[in-house]
Amino acid sequence: MRLVTEAPFAPPARLLLGPGPSNVDQRVLAAQARPVIGHLDPEFLKLMDGVKAMLRSVFRTSNDFALPISGTGSAGMEAAFVNFLAPGDRVVVGVNGVFGTRMTEVAYKYGAQVERVVKPWGRVFDPSDFGPALDRGPVRLLAVVHAETSTGACQPIEGLAALAHDHGALLLVDTVTSLGGVPVDTDGWGADIVYSGTQKCLSVPPGLAPLTLSARALAALKVRAAAGPLFPGVVPPPSNPNSIQSWYLDLTQLARYWGTDRVYHHTAPISALYGLHEGLRIVLEEGLEARWQRHARNSAALWAGLGALGLKPWAEEGHRLASLNAVTVPDGVDEAAVRKALLVEHGIEIGGGLGELKGLIWRVGLMGHSSRLENVVRLIEALAKVLSGRMKLPDPTRALAAAEAAGR
Amino acid sequence: MRLVTEAPFAPPARLLLGPGPSNVDQRVLAAQARPVIGHLDPEFLKLMDGVKAMLRSVFRTSNDFALPISGTGSAGMEAAFVNFLAPGDRVVVGVNGVFGTRMTEVAYKYGAQVERVVKPWGRVFDPSDFGPALDRGPVRLLAVVHAETSTGACQPIEGLAALAHDHGALLLVDTVTSLGGVPVDTDGWGADIVYSGTQKCLSVPPGLAPLTLSARALAALKVRAAAGPLFPGVVPPPSNPNSIQSWYLDLTQLARYWGTDRVYHHTAPISALYGLHEGLRIVLEEGLEARWQRHARNSAALWAGLGALGLKPWAEEGHRLASLNAVTVPDGVDEAAVRKALLVEHGIEIGGGLGELKGLIWRVGLMGHSSRLENVVRLIEALAKVLSGRMKLPDPTRALAAAEAAGR
Repeated sequence: MRLVTEAPFAPPARLLLGPGPSNVDQRVLAAQARPVIGHLDPEFLKLMDGVKAMLRSVFRTSNDFALPISGTGSAGMEAAFVNFLAPGDRVVVGVNGVFGTRMTEVAYKYGAQVERVVKPWGRVFDPSDFGPALDRGPVRLLAVVHAETSTGACQPIEGLAALAHDHGALLLVDTVTSLGGVPVDTDGWGADIVYSGTQKCLSVPPGLAPLTLSARALAALKVRAAAGPLFPGVVPPPSNPNSIQSWYLDLTQLARYWGTDRVYHHTAPISALYGLHEGLRIVLEEGLEARWQRHARNSAALWAGLGALGLKPWAEEGHRLASLNAVTVPDGVDEAAVRKALLVEHGIEIGGGLGELKGLIWRVGLMGHSSRLENVVRLIEALAKVLSGRMKLPDPTRALAAAEAAGR
Repeated sequence: MRLVTEAPFAPPARLLLGPGPSNVDQRVLAAQARPVIGHLDPEFLKLMDGVKAMLRSVFRTSNDFALPISGTGSAGMEAAFVNFLAPGDRVVVGVNGVFGTRMTEVAYKYGAQVERVVKPWGRVFDPSDFGPALDRGPVRLLAVVHAETSTGACQPIEGLAALAHDHGALLLVDTVTSLGGVPVDTDGWGADIVYSGTQKCLSVPPGLAPLTLSARALAALKVRAAAGPLFPGVVPPPSNPNSIQSWYLDLTQLARYWGTDRVYHHTAPISALYGLHEGLRIVLEEGLEARWQRHARNSAALWAGLGALGLKPWAEEGHRLASLNAVTVPDGVDEAAVRKALLVEHGIEIGGGLGELKGLIWRVGLMGHSSRLENVVRLIEALAKVLSGRMKLPDPTRALAAAEAAGR
């Protein structure tokens, strides 16, 4: 059989202003190049403890359970659902974008009865929106997306935990595009299951999904794990695994692997954890409040510049994410051609719309290391050039001045 | 809330001769430090194609489907089972170690009827061992572990595909500890579902699980995906996902993401794929046959040295893995203390026994970049020193000479 060898891969220089990954600090990249050691090495166990401690700080929680799942943010979502749902359980999901929709798909895979509470994409929910669905019967989870990456909307979480708990449900929150860039306050919210990804506001390469569980969620997990066989007539093996419908994402096993017992489960992704450790150090050196302010300031600069170019935001006013800025594509402009020109002629990546917003919006990420005033200015400048042949544009020098003034 | 920041992590120097990870070539580490680009960037798509092409070479297959799952080898195992099993399906599993046992646990999670065919740990199966279990009724999968990492035994695969196919089953093979170090011949075997990990004989950090599917497996996957709702009474969401019981590991979605459509599924772990791309280049530059011979030669050197020290192999003669060498712990020796002394005093990691072999064996990995004569010599030398106070030992200079002679 002929062996196919490839040329070495040399990635081009890119300014990453899409929906993720964001640009990664050289310190994180250097950490990923450190020599690999064993995942049960006493020195590596210290790194695991450090990652857990720093995740608690970034999630703003005193939860004992806080660890990165060995998969991307989507694995975090699946872990959040599969550990708490048995076939037939009811779950109420807020659906106002791709990731709320995805939650319904994931919950369906495990046999849950999914109750969708729907809003137009770009708008957010009021706690009262969930009342009727919660009242209709016993509910296991109330699930919402804090930062809807597909629309640029930021869902307020306040009031949702009390509502969920009053109905005997746990509150599940997706913070993939907010953690480390937009205020996430796990304990203040009273949220029970909160997960994220690394490649957005943490500016660590994709591949891990930080996840934290409240004491209430841990208690529910224990009950869930102790439940009898899921499938009638199926004889468990003598090693008797619990009834959670995933082996790889079973949080009871992950808790033992990441806990003081260090019971072997899988082999942790060593290099990725080196990167996350260094990335979390950078986040905490800057400080969460300073980081949130930086994200807010640079988003304001972006909108000042885009506004001066005549471009409009998509998401609901007052609920726009600083980390992910959804821009309405002007009538008659070929949005894909604009993105391609930005990438090829200017080395800048921005995102297009997903799902029902395909063709209608651009998604400009200003996340983590990428959230800098000079990047905003570079984008405004490039976008003005690319758009100038395609639509009637105001004077771009005013847009640049507006962005720079707002970003100081 | 007080923010906890940690000191930077500086991994100690380690010679990795355990069950994985193995030592990683500096070229792979350097690749992981390259700038991150977007996962839908046209340049990144080329890298994905290159990874697929090289995986086909390493798996020795012309299968269209060959890609790395975004999780560790255990995620590969779960993907292999969850995509082909519906509740109630019968699966026959060869159990002669930890990873065959794990297969039964994984299959159970998805409601399969698991039929265990058992051998003592360290021994291998004859195709005829599976006959009675296969004959007892319709079977979806025949699953075996090619390289049992927990025992050091190498299961012959010849004859199993015909047997499985005659019974209408697919042949599933775990090659986590063999791919790239011990002959794996996907097409020659006629195997249908073959997965591996990166951190063993490929010498790439843990985090990805290469997986390939035969045309027969793809056809079965199509049927499985098209099957109706799994759970009676559960209404699928309007986006109508298929009935495979995992979202993250759904191979029909991964095929579209990695295929020419590039349908967004999750965000691929960019840095890890840079590392795998470079690691596969190194494997193919050396050549598979040369690599297998190197692994065999260094394992022979190890056993020559260990034999001269009076140490005995655990696994069945004629079926010992070159990549993972299971050594019987001599009577009266505290095996954990020996491993600790090797790590702390000599910077060498070897593994202990798992499950029912805990305390009975050491596991010496000679995998990928770690499989070198100088490493064998270093281990024999260190082991002789560590054992000398603990048991009566023959002259270690003879052991070193024996290892060096066998390793030339």
